[in-house]
Amino acid sequence: MADIKKVLVLGTGVLGSQIAFQTAYSGFDVAVYDINDEVVGKARDTTFPNLAKTYLSEVTGATQETVDAALARLTYHSDLAEAADGIDIAVEAVPEVLKIKESVFGELNKVAPADAIFCTNSSTLLPSDIAPFTGRPDRFLAMHFANRVWSANTAEIMGTPETDKAVFDDVVEFAKQIGMVPIPMHKEKSGYVLNSLLVPLLGAAAELAAGDYADPKAIDDVWRIATGAPLGPFQIYDIIGLDTPYNIMQSGDADQQKLAAWLKENYIDKGRTGLAAGHGFYDYT
Amino acid sequence: MADIKKVLVLGTGVLGSQIAFQTAYSGFDVAVYDINDEVVGKARDTTFPNLAKTYLSEVTGATQETVDAALARLTYHSDLAEAADGIDIAVEAVPEVLKIKESVFGELNKVAPADAIFCTNSSTLLPSDIAPFTGRPDRFLAMHFANRVWSANTAEIMGTPETDKAVFDDVVEFAKQIGMVPIPMHKEKSGYVLNSLLVPLLGAAAELAAGDYADPKAIDDVWRIATGAPLGPFQIYDIIGLDTPYNIMQSGDADQQKLAAWLKENYIDKGRTGLAAGHGFYDYT
Repeated sequence: MADIKKVLVLGTGVLGSQIAFQTAYSGFDVAVYDINDEVVGKARDTTFPNLAKTYLSEVTGATQETVDAALARLTYHSDLAEAADGIDIAVEAVPEVLKIKESVFGELNKVAPADAIFCTNSSTLLPSDIAPFTGRPDRFLAMHFANRVWSANTAEIMGTPETDKAVFDDVVEFAKQIGMVPIPMHKEKSGYVLNSLLVPLLGAAAELAAGDYADPKAIDDVWRIATGAPLGPFQIYDIIGLDTPYNIMQSGDADQQKLAAWLKENYIDKGRTGLAAGHGFYDYT
Repeated sequence: MADIKKVLVLGTGVLGSQIAFQTAYSGFDVAVYDINDEVVGKARDTTFPNLAKTYLSEVTGATQETVDAALARLTYHSDLAEAADGIDIAVEAVPEVLKIKESVFGELNKVAPADAIFCTNSSTLLPSDIAPFTGRPDRFLAMHFANRVWSANTAEIMGTPETDKAVFDDVVEFAKQIGMVPIPMHKEKSGYVLNSLLVPLLGAAAELAAGDYADPKAIDDVWRIATGAPLGPFQIYDIIGLDTPYNIMQSGDADQQKLAAWLKENYIDKGRTGLAAGHGFYDYT
């Protein structure tokens, strides 16, 4: 089993910064990389200190000492060669654009140790789409995190047919070491496990409401009461934001496109795009 | 709005007895009917006293006094005319066989007051299937309860195109009065709301496991953690029992039938039919 000590996280967006902080909080040295000094500086001066505060208020057992120790394990880089020096594993969380992933992994492969493991956090691309650009398809796979990694602590782990089994197992082990519950997948599937479950549920809920069988609130009521879930499907829509399900449905079959049109006409076009907007299926203001 | 005082519950099976007790517990006089004195006697001597004990231990605020008062509001009948005397509403919870429903509602229509509302608790039949036998299609609709009505307190309410709107509203109000959260449906749909959501979720979970994308436990893990739900889809399978989803899938399309075969070969044929058997996707012994 690989002895993972030094970790590189590429990208300081919402997920990248959370992955980096969670990893440092779990005791690993973490090199944080982003495209230039300004972006990196903002992460160092704002994003990570804010995350430290969030951990203090939301993570059981977090103290000023433990979050300070996590911050002290982070180093900040806009030079990829410097960032990749001596790393055992890299986790990529750059924008969801294949060209950008291609470029980042191509460059990374040139400067990272030959035996370093590369992971992508991509939500929408399959690791097979990215593997050809990594220069090490046997040491490459997806490790997919969820927003608010400290509480939504799942890591869906999905290799390609070329991924070395030992590397896969190492990443499962690493996920545990950084406080995640690993969700190992035996083969590739778009949407991993969670979205493969959530998309049909949200689609069925939209069908009920768009078909005027029942109102969103009644649908949520029965789901919460019958399953004990804290949130009904329309509350989940509001949290995700309606644009993402809309885009997924829009690229589906004719039935799916009807649901997309219903979402658009009745909600999105009226500015009811979800919790972040203050209005979605429910009002939050 | 109709002034509902006296309620008839037809059938003393799992749901029928729960509906009757919950209604009596909520202050209504309830006539309990079943096919002969032996069945009725068993309900009176065993089922209802056991339900009273369950309420005492599981229902907040239940006391010996309140459950005794509920028991005192129940009367027991194997004579339908006697049971239906002076009732305002009847709730049918007899076996899920159309011929039996036809016979029960046909007889009931002869002896019940002309303005009494008739409800069916059928899970699998549409109220339209039953309405022709009730003699009062305008005063007939479905009110569908869930097992353990005292905590899974939803009543899915679904009329036919012939159901009088005022009757529908009266039943929504009655559902509230007996402690249910009404889930009003605007038109008929097989599976009501809950199963229209649950079936796609359970199907998607089966697809992931049957397709060997991930193990049931990992699938449940990510669902619980990401959605905050207390149970993952395979835990829900085990609680429902695998036979019911098997039967639903078996009557579906080719993809569904493949999932049914997978359930059968890997679980049902091995005696792993769910929680009640001690084994399903998980072991409970």
